[in-house]
Formats: sequence, C-alpha cells, structure tokens
Amino acid sequence: MAGGSVGELGEFGLIDEIIRDLPMTRGVVLGAGDDCAVFSAEGNVAVSTDTMVADRHWKDTWSSPRDVGRKAVAAAVADLEAVGARPIGLVISLAVPTTLAADWVRDFAAGVRQECERAGAGLLGGDTTAAPTAVVTVTVFGDLQGRDPVTRAGARPGDVVALKGRLGWAEAGRAVLNRGFRSPAAVVNAHRVPEPPYGAGAAAARAGASAMIDVSDGLLADLGHVARASGVTIQLQTSHFDIAEPQRAVAGAIGRRDPLGFILTGGDDHALTATFAAGGVPDGWRVIGHVEAGEPIVLVDGAVWEGPQGWDHFSGGRG
Amino acid sequence: MAGGSVGELGEFGLIDEIIRDLPMTRGVVLGAGDDCAVFSAEGNVAVSTDTMVADRHWKDTWSSPRDVGRKAVAAAVADLEAVGARPIGLVISLAVPTTLAADWVRDFAAGVRQECERAGAGLLGGDTTAAPTAVVTVTVFGDLQGRDPVTRAGARPGDVVALKGRLGWAEAGRAVLNRGFRSPAAVVNAHRVPEPPYGAGAAAARAGASAMIDVSDGLLADLGHVARASGVTIQLQTSHFDIAEPQRAVAGAIGRRDPLGFILTGGDDHALTATFAAGGVPDGWRVIGHVEAGEPIVLVDGAVWEGPQGWDHFSGGRG
Repeated sequence: MAGGSVGELGEFGLIDEIIRDLPMTRGVVLGAGDDCAVFSAEGNVAVSTDTMVADRHWKDTWSSPRDVGRKAVAAAVADLEAVGARPIGLVISLAVPTTLAADWVRDFAAGVRQECERAGAGLLGGDTTAAPTAVVTVTVFGDLQGRDPVTRAGARPGDVVALKGRLGWAEAGRAVLNRGFRSPAAVVNAHRVPEPPYGAGAAAARAGASAMIDVSDGLLADLGHVARASGVTIQLQTSHFDIAEPQRAVAGAIGRRDPLGFILTGGDDHALTATFAAGGVPDGWRVIGHVEAGEPIVLVDGAVWEGPQGWDHFSGGRG
Repeated sequence: MAGGSVGELGEFGLIDEIIRDLPMTRGVVLGAGDDCAVFSAEGNVAVSTDTMVADRHWKDTWSSPRDVGRKAVAAAVADLEAVGARPIGLVISLAVPTTLAADWVRDFAAGVRQECERAGAGLLGGDTTAAPTAVVTVTVFGDLQGRDPVTRAGARPGDVVALKGRLGWAEAGRAVLNRGFRSPAAVVNAHRVPEPPYGAGAAAARAGASAMIDVSDGLLADLGHVARASGVTIQLQTSHFDIAEPQRAVAGAIGRRDPLGFILTGGDDHALTATFAAGGVPDGWRVIGHVEAGEPIVLVDGAVWEGPQGWDHFSGGRG
C-alpha cells in the first residue's frame, strides 16, 4: 500500500512497513515480530542509545526521510565504534504524528535499512507510537570480540592523539543550510548523513588504543571528556589538521568564521578520535596531538580555545 | 542541586542526575557514562524496546513522575518475561521540554531505579534531549539462560491456555480516572504502575510453555497474535476468569460496562498468558482456555466477542 497517513495505516500496519522482509544477519536468532528479538553473544556486549527529535536534530526542509533514517543509525553505531565494538544489531523506536504521510515512514525505514547494511548491523525490531513531534530512538548493541571496551579513561601521558574520519563537514553544511543555500554539496550531504569510519573502532581497539570517543558534540568537547575521565592534558596542534576546500569556501562565504572553528567545535560527523602509545597508531589515522600530565583540559597550540565549545542539546545554542 | 528547570540543568547535568550512584548489578561490566555500557552474556540475548508519550500513555494529572518511571520499566521488562528471559539491564532515552521542572526528572529517575530493582534489571545508561513533548523509550536486554525464546508461534491443538497476573485492573483504573474519580485505589494504582509477574516468564519457559505473550493491548488482541502466529483457534471460557470486587464496583459505577470487558480487552496490566501441554501448567497459573485446530481466531465461550478489541496506539480510541 502506498500513500495514506500514519493514522490511516495504524500502529500494526506501520510496524509491518518497517520490519517487512528484513534480512536475517549474523548473530540474529529471532528477528522482529515477537515480544522480543533475540541475538547470540559470547562475552561482552556493548550497548548505547541515541535519540533524535524533529526540528532539533533534523529539519524536514533540509533532510529527506531517508537521510533521517540513515543519520539515526549512523549516529548510534558510532557509539559502538567508540568503544571498539563490532555492530550486532539495533532496535528502533519511532514516535510520529498521525497526520504524517505514511510515505515518510517508508522512506525513513528505507534509510534505516540502507545504513544498517553499510554499518553491518542487523535491524532487529522496534516500536511505533503517535506523538505530536517526531522522535527517533535507536538502541545499538555490539560485540567486543573478547576485548575489554576502550573507554574515555585510559589516555596516558606520552600517548599520541589520532583521528579517523572527517571533522567539521556537517557543521559547515549546517552553516550554509542555515543561510538558505544548498551548496557546496559535499558539506550539505555531510550534514544530512554522517559517514562514521565503520570498522575503524574495532581496528583501533585491536591496535591497542588506550582511550577513544566519537566526535558527536565537537572535537574540543569530546576530547574534553577524555581529558577529564583520564585526568590528563591533551595538546592539539592545528598544523596537523586538514581543512578541506569546501570548508574554506563556506567560511569565506559566510564571512565570519575561521574554518578551524568548524574542525574544533563542529559536531555530528562522528569521526573517531583515540589515544595510542607512541608508535602504535594504526594505518589511516592522522596524528593531531599528544597527551601530557597536567590538569584535565584540552589545549589548542598550547592555549585555551576561545571560540564556542560544541553545543548542548538543551542550551540549544547551535541546534 | 534541587529545583530548577531541565533547561537550567542542561543535557550533561540531566544525565548526571539520572545515572548518579547507579548500583552495579550482576552482568554489568561497564556502567553508564561512556559511549557505551557493557554487559556480559553467554548465549541468546533477548531485546525489546518500548516507547511512552506524555498525554497518550500517561497523564501528569493522573500519574506522578515516579509512577511514569516505574511504568516505563515495567512495560519494557514484561516483554522479556514474555519470551522467558531473565532481565539483564536496560537503557533509557528521555526527551523532555526544557521548561519541565528538573524535579520531575529526579522523581522519574527514582521511579526507574525502584522498578529496576523490583525487576532485577540493571540500569545501564541512557540519553537525554529536549523535545516539545515528553517521550520515554526503554530498551531492555535479557538472558535466555540457554533456552530458546518462547515465541507466539508455538501453540498447538490440545494445549491449554493459562494466565499469570492481573487482567483489566489498569483499564478499570483508567475508566474511573477518566471520569474524574480517584478510587477504588487498587485499580487506580494499577493504572499508574503495572505489576507484571516478574520471574513468571522464565519459570513458564522452564516448565515448557509452547507459546507466550504479555497482555499489553488486551487479552483478546494479544491472544489474537498467538492464534495467528501459531495458526490455531483459541477458546476462552469466561467461567475461569476471576472478576475482582473493585472491577465489579467500577463497572457498576460507570453504569455501562460488563466487568468482563475489562478482563478481555483492558491492556497495560502486563499479565502473562501462555500455552502449555495439558498437565504441564506451572503452579500459580490459572487455566483460562484451550487450543484447537482451526482458523486463527480467539473465541469467548465459543463465540466471537462483539465488544471492543483492545486498542491501537494510533487510532487512539481508548488512549
């Protein structure tokens, strides 16, 4: 059935639309459709939950329903990467207005499936209900493959800080969309759908990462969590950062921001940043700084960054 | 810090309020506060997610924040019981208006902890964000202790249908609250906080239950799922039901419903209903019917029930 509203489709019809013909993936013992789904696990299972709210975490005028579905999955799976786990699967809760077009839900579900496939995660089930505003919650679980989780608390003086993935692309995209533009496409697309470096978290864990986090709130904010949890000073060298051409173009066009601001404080790209013993950085990671004994703080070229420090979903400063 | 609004507390302050001093429970390797929590598992893990929306699944004029927290946990854990799993832990996502009193969140968190303790589930972590309407999503994980999950699909002709827990109490409570009354207290409290028969699901699985479901949408609706998944006819005998005095009182007071309607179509009590081979019903379960070969339907004293058939969260008829 195409067309119609969510209210016409009803709760069970909506669930059917989302879970229909789900592929069974590795580790999934019982898929969606019963009171629980069931997966098999041997050893430590990592779990994280992540919520997105319409008009706060996405705008329907900026992002397609497919984009929203992909983003919800990517943001949640990035938390598994950040502890070094390999995705097993996820469950999704979708609260939407009854007046919403059912095709929105179908396209959203298509995006969820697409990103699950990219991430190697099974879609195990979900719940749907009506709400005045659309709210999406994704809960992911992953296999630590017998390893301990890589936490935020293991950074040690002498370690180097390294990065895998993009920083400040989504924020540059948000900046242009916020001003009514749709280009450069590369950064606008980065805002719509993040590209976490799938697989890099488990690889970093195997390489002996001492601490790790995914950059969801901005590099300074997220490395600040590592500095506090580990009780160390983190020194970043801006000469090590790669400022991409679209970021320079956006900073120039909006006429008021050093592109470095995107890199240091832009969230939502879900790059991974981790600390490693010197000499232990895996291939494909870029060294961006180092760890020192000292007060728990992140310094940029030896000084406190004076610009904005990422954003808080409740203060809403940049949402 | 007491008092204040959610907006003043901020996202990280709010998370701190919820996860502060969480007890570490059996199986929890890494608690809240990092990108993921970690639990240990050996074998099949059951997972389910359940969402509640303000003014749809609860009313702040009827239920305290503590009631809402307890109800969210109980409803989610009941899905684990329904496949025969023992709770390991849960994660919770809370989206709330920034103008909400922070004390609401503190009392809600107290309710979550209280019910986690009752259910034997660890609180592993969560996510908080701002939204125009409060939305709570609980995702639970359970240990099948080496057993296969008890699904809805295993009922066989010749089995008996049995019940553990209460039916129609929450619905009777909703009926009186909806008319502006606050008593009988027993049914009003049942609406506010369900009392799933914790532990009975795993016990039923050990006893060889062939199919099982928790009664969240109403007995007829939920046994309808079993009848369809198993391809059988389910016959219920109303003489086997226990209609409690408060239910008779409410039906009399509101002057229009047979109390049997509460029993057959009232949701939200999260009793367990299961099918067993004749002679295999565990102690403490009440036999309420039997399974026959035939079209997938539930009959009441041999006939189709003509009253309402439970409720759909999207059609909103009785929400």
